[in-house]
Amino acid sequence: MVRALALSAALVAATPLIAKEGHEAVTTFTLDNGMDVVVVEDHRAPVVQHMVWYRAGSADEPVGSSGVAHFLEHLLFKGTDTLAPGEFSATVAANGGNDNAFTSYDYTAYYQRVAADRLELMMRMEADRMRNIRLSEEDIVTERDVILEERNQRTDNSPRALFGEQMGASQYLNHRYGVPIIGWRHEMETLDMEDALSFYQTHYAPNNAILVVTGDVEPDAVKALAEQYYGVIPANPDLPERVRSQEPPQTSERRLTFKDARVSQPYVQRSYLAPERDPGEQQKAAALFLLAELLGGSTTSYLNEKLQFEQQMVVYAGAFYRGVSLDDTTFDLLVVPAQGVSLQEAEDAMDQAVADFITEGVNEEDLDRIKMQLRAAQTYARDNVDGIGNRYGRALTSGLTVEDVQAWPDILQAVTGDEIIAAAREVLQPEASVTGWLMRDDEVTQ
Amino acid sequence: MVRALALSAALVAATPLIAKEGHEAVTTFTLDNGMDVVVVEDHRAPVVQHMVWYRAGSADEPVGSSGVAHFLEHLLFKGTDTLAPGEFSATVAANGGNDNAFTSYDYTAYYQRVAADRLELMMRMEADRMRNIRLSEEDIVTERDVILEERNQRTDNSPRALFGEQMGASQYLNHRYGVPIIGWRHEMETLDMEDALSFYQTHYAPNNAILVVTGDVEPDAVKALAEQYYGVIPANPDLPERVRSQEPPQTSERRLTFKDARVSQPYVQRSYLAPERDPGEQQKAAALFLLAELLGGSTTSYLNEKLQFEQQMVVYAGAFYRGVSLDDTTFDLLVVPAQGVSLQEAEDAMDQAVADFITEGVNEEDLDRIKMQLRAAQTYARDNVDGIGNRYGRALTSGLTVEDVQAWPDILQAVTGDEIIAAAREVLQPEASVTGWLMRDDEVTQ
Repeated sequence: MVRALALSAALVAATPLIAKEGHEAVTTFTLDNGMDVVVVEDHRAPVVQHMVWYRAGSADEPVGSSGVAHFLEHLLFKGTDTLAPGEFSATVAANGGNDNAFTSYDYTAYYQRVAADRLELMMRMEADRMRNIRLSEEDIVTERDVILEERNQRTDNSPRALFGEQMGASQYLNHRYGVPIIGWRHEMETLDMEDALSFYQTHYAPNNAILVVTGDVEPDAVKALAEQYYGVIPANPDLPERVRSQEPPQTSERRLTFKDARVSQPYVQRSYLAPERDPGEQQKAAALFLLAELLGGSTTSYLNEKLQFEQQMVVYAGAFYRGVSLDDTTFDLLVVPAQGVSLQEAEDAMDQAVADFITEGVNEEDLDRIKMQLRAAQTYARDNVDGIGNRYGRALTSGLTVEDVQAWPDILQAVTGDEIIAAAREVLQPEASVTGWLMRDDEVTQ
Repeated sequence: MVRALALSAALVAATPLIAKEGHEAVTTFTLDNGMDVVVVEDHRAPVVQHMVWYRAGSADEPVGSSGVAHFLEHLLFKGTDTLAPGEFSATVAANGGNDNAFTSYDYTAYYQRVAADRLELMMRMEADRMRNIRLSEEDIVTERDVILEERNQRTDNSPRALFGEQMGASQYLNHRYGVPIIGWRHEMETLDMEDALSFYQTHYAPNNAILVVTGDVEPDAVKALAEQYYGVIPANPDLPERVRSQEPPQTSERRLTFKDARVSQPYVQRSYLAPERDPGEQQKAAALFLLAELLGGSTTSYLNEKLQFEQQMVVYAGAFYRGVSLDDTTFDLLVVPAQGVSLQEAEDAMDQAVADFITEGVNEEDLDRIKMQLRAAQTYARDNVDGIGNRYGRALTSGLTVEDVQAWPDILQAVTGDEIIAAAREVLQPEASVTGWLMRDDEVTQ
């Protein structure tokens, strides 16, 4: 079974769907042992998604053990005291459902989609593996090979992914976000039973977890089941604070060139260190979100209008901002030069266009159009309760609150053009940036 | 009192003195509790240097607590159960001696220079503070201010030092050598009693320490005293392995520009990730050491001959290699452009000169001259027993053995020109390099 790994490469950054949860059936509460619960009701079909999110991701790993969060995610599909290896997923499948898991910088999450009347079974099994996993040395060896092969396929065979790793490692001077989620190969190769169990015992506990149930359920019934299965698990009294090293002042404009014979399409990526969405303080992040939309969110955005259609310098331009993050995130620009245009020319054109955008100020019609699109997306998003559940899980494991999630759509709508320009001036600082050139081996750099 | 902090900036890298210790009075042994002891005899004057080196430096610090190794070094001059704060150094001074300490990436060391008949007193006090320090909250607050002010003076007031920090952080993608020894300011500001005591309790133990005594002493007498004072301290059975995250493949040529209005003399620095001296495997490091000498070790070295005197492109050229290091170190080149020469021109000239050097091969006369100078330096170094002691302490805390230290001079003499060129070809890889430009604010980058 292939486990999903949350991707961070700018090229695949997805535009989040925005829903006005305040108008929807979202219920939240906390069990006595500290486990948070989010319930999103949707009675149109007799199905349910059951998720457990842990406030533990790759950025919570010990030094030298990169990849252990994701490794442990794989190992949770091995046995427990009462389940044989593989029996968890087999049971889900036998009940007509499917299950999987994913790991990112700030969280690890497990989920199953099943018929609503199977929710209790899912809870029983998920609560079981929160505390009772049993691993054999063979499990360790086998699954370590699996994650190494996963790294082969996803990263080592992809110049873009390798380039992205070097960009991230160069962007972060001190913070663990500079280490890839899947891990550095030489550290993955050393992961053992002790590494996995130590991460498990430290981080897997109800007071470090969020239960998210979406679908054809009643909050009271979910609460009763959650108390029965999760509520009996004692909190970990020694749960450590999430120790994250913060960035020192970034005072040097950085550049890197990555050459690989397998590169079919060279491009320029610019990454700026940027603030994330903070609890109660999401305005600047909202301005950056809209800045990304305005500059490079679609084929009609500013960079594409200027660089792709007017100047015909690039075949693609994009801007990306991932605001849900426990610590400082990045704001990214990307341009793919047209035939006959050098990376330097494309980069210069990109910089000029961004400077022009800031000088000209935000076109109010463009901003209104994007806000209208966001409102429409919110409407569509209400039909996707699993998406709502994901959004809560991601937010709550990234330092945000339920109130922050619910306030976000209105905060976006309230952002002004001046605030967007102010955010651009503040964040798009060369000193806090890395500019990367992904190149073919045979190219010269200038 | 100002505590010495080992400096890593390339500009101040000193040429190590080389002594053939095999021909000198060096005695080594290990106490039953695991404490290593090195004695270097020198009976010309009735003085002694007493040092204790811990295998714990800034690279052994926990994530988020940068600077704690150096902070603790300061705090060891506060009180113990039997000594009042400041009494340690006052006692050394009252006995006609002086004392100090220093911290680097891989070690922290404490030393006193006194009359030989005061050795027992030094051991009694040093053994006392290996296990009995007593800190007040006032000590913490006061000394934290001292280290912050030290950072102000050494780093924040020095564009070169700030530039060096950004270079180091960019060179190391995963290893803690990318974090400055003195610490990032925002992390230093959070250091507290618990951080200091935790580092102390983890790392300060006889089985993690090396006693180095140099001067007018007899090994048997030192052994008797060491057993009496240090031998009674129990080993720490939970002494952790030195966990160091190693570098992933460095596959991207990196550049950075650091601009500061206070820069009086812009320059170009190139830093390559390079192997260090490893136990039993010092040949490549020896070749790199000689490469640095040949390229930029003096005013008559290759880069200076070409760039300073023939082409008059630079007013200074240097090459630096710090081989004593527990993990991967760096090989650095530095050129200071002459008036009217741009940083780009100076860099291009430097690269061309290095390429020419590799193509031409080593001039055997130059190599013989440097080897002869090294032999002469060894002779002079025999008069400096404290230097010999330092060399053992540094080597033993950096993963080398006594045998490695004693073999090093002969290994250097045996290096051939071909080996030097091979090492240059292997290590001077753009993909593993960072090129930094230290600039005034008003300069343009191209």
